[in-house]
Amino acid sequence: MWRASVLTLYPAMFPGPLGHALSGRALGHAWSLEARDIRDHAHDRHRSVDDTPAGGGPGMVLRADVVAEALAAVGEDSRPRVLLTPRGRPLTQKRVRALAAGPGVVLLCGRFEGVDQRVIERRGLEEIAVGDVVLSGGEPAALLLLDACVRLLPGVMGDAASGDEESFEGDLLEHPHYTRPRDFEGAGVPEALVSGDHARAARWRKARAMADTRARRPDLWAKYVARATRGVDKAGEVE
Amino acid sequence: MWRASVLTLYPAMFPGPLGHALSGRALGHAWSLEARDIRDHAHDRHRSVDDTPAGGGPGMVLRADVVAEALAAVGEDSRPRVLLTPRGRPLTQKRVRALAAGPGVVLLCGRFEGVDQRVIERRGLEEIAVGDVVLSGGEPAALLLLDACVRLLPGVMGDAASGDEESFEGDLLEHPHYTRPRDFEGAGVPEALVSGDHARAARWRKARAMADTRARRPDLWAKYVARATRGVDKAGEVE
Repeated sequence: MWRASVLTLYPAMFPGPLGHALSGRALGHAWSLEARDIRDHAHDRHRSVDDTPAGGGPGMVLRADVVAEALAAVGEDSRPRVLLTPRGRPLTQKRVRALAAGPGVVLLCGRFEGVDQRVIERRGLEEIAVGDVVLSGGEPAALLLLDACVRLLPGVMGDAASGDEESFEGDLLEHPHYTRPRDFEGAGVPEALVSGDHARAARWRKARAMADTRARRPDLWAKYVARATRGVDKAGEVE
Repeated sequence: MWRASVLTLYPAMFPGPLGHALSGRALGHAWSLEARDIRDHAHDRHRSVDDTPAGGGPGMVLRADVVAEALAAVGEDSRPRVLLTPRGRPLTQKRVRALAAGPGVVLLCGRFEGVDQRVIERRGLEEIAVGDVVLSGGEPAALLLLDACVRLLPGVMGDAASGDEESFEGDLLEHPHYTRPRDFEGAGVPEALVSGDHARAARWRKARAMADTRARRPDLWAKYVARATRGVDKAGEVE
């Protein structure tokens, strides 16, 4: 079973949305989740886990010693240990696939201004950001990361997540979708998709995926072009 | 009051984590949240909201007519209407600040393969992605977006969110943080931060923010350099 451990000041936020729908039905079967309260590792009777930033400034910083003890209580195993922070490297579908293929993950949710840098470095925490935004804490990012991983676990989604045409596979966005009714306020479904010609539908989709990636995500498009130039048009074969 | 309306197949996922901590305490005061079930707008007795993709392939697509009716039920107002989808433009702190400064937001959470493209275009939905990842649905992204907005609302966080030194302001990541104890497993706090010299601490922080941005986020660093070259080193003055 894929195991997720979350260190947080708000364990009641978990499983939250992950207790519903696909991930909720798979919880306890395809994956497990434990939310641990960082505050259990405070040293004083006020259960304080943070202190003022060295060098001044607003907010509070999670203490290195408290975080180290919270991590120790999870135990050492082969799971990657991740800190959710806007200072991290952006989460990608490639990283999600690698995490989902492993034994699970330990997630540390930052709160306040951040986490003392020394425990991040000493414990080799992987710093990951979800979106170029600042959150009230790492919890919403942790929930999103877990959702992205859990849907890829065997048996959770079936074919729908197999995903050769999903966004970010092969550095392209996914093509747009259409379904019934054939007419919506006078707008039809593109002819290529209702022609019954599967090869034609596939060509239309690829062309739209390329056009939309180029228009919406010039950063991904540049990667795609570089990959295609090397004659490799398949996810995963080239970094 | 800042108003959030969420259209979802899983209204029970809301407020979820946003019912706790800062956003939970501000719910009903600084902001309001209504989660509406898209399924209430199904047309048949099976309450079906989706159908197979035109052109074939796995999964199901949310119907344009059902989504249009769900949007109509929210009512027309000046709030931006956003679809959370991996095909969207990446969420940025700049967009979060603009959304938080407005009257609120209407969020449509995709599920299954996606949403019929015609209703996205006809209703002018703004497509936003949170992270370059594929989720089981838009709900975790919606929760994350709302968290990022709510913390910026007046009175929710106070000074801590004022944020001149927060990540992504001025296209730099935030500097690392340190706090007590002075010694953690033999590692000290950088001398510049405990010298009592505030100007020196500020210089150290700026230098570290620049170095970390350059190493971790070459994309942001390129923007920062371009901005600095134009003699503008301040968030918001230049796109």
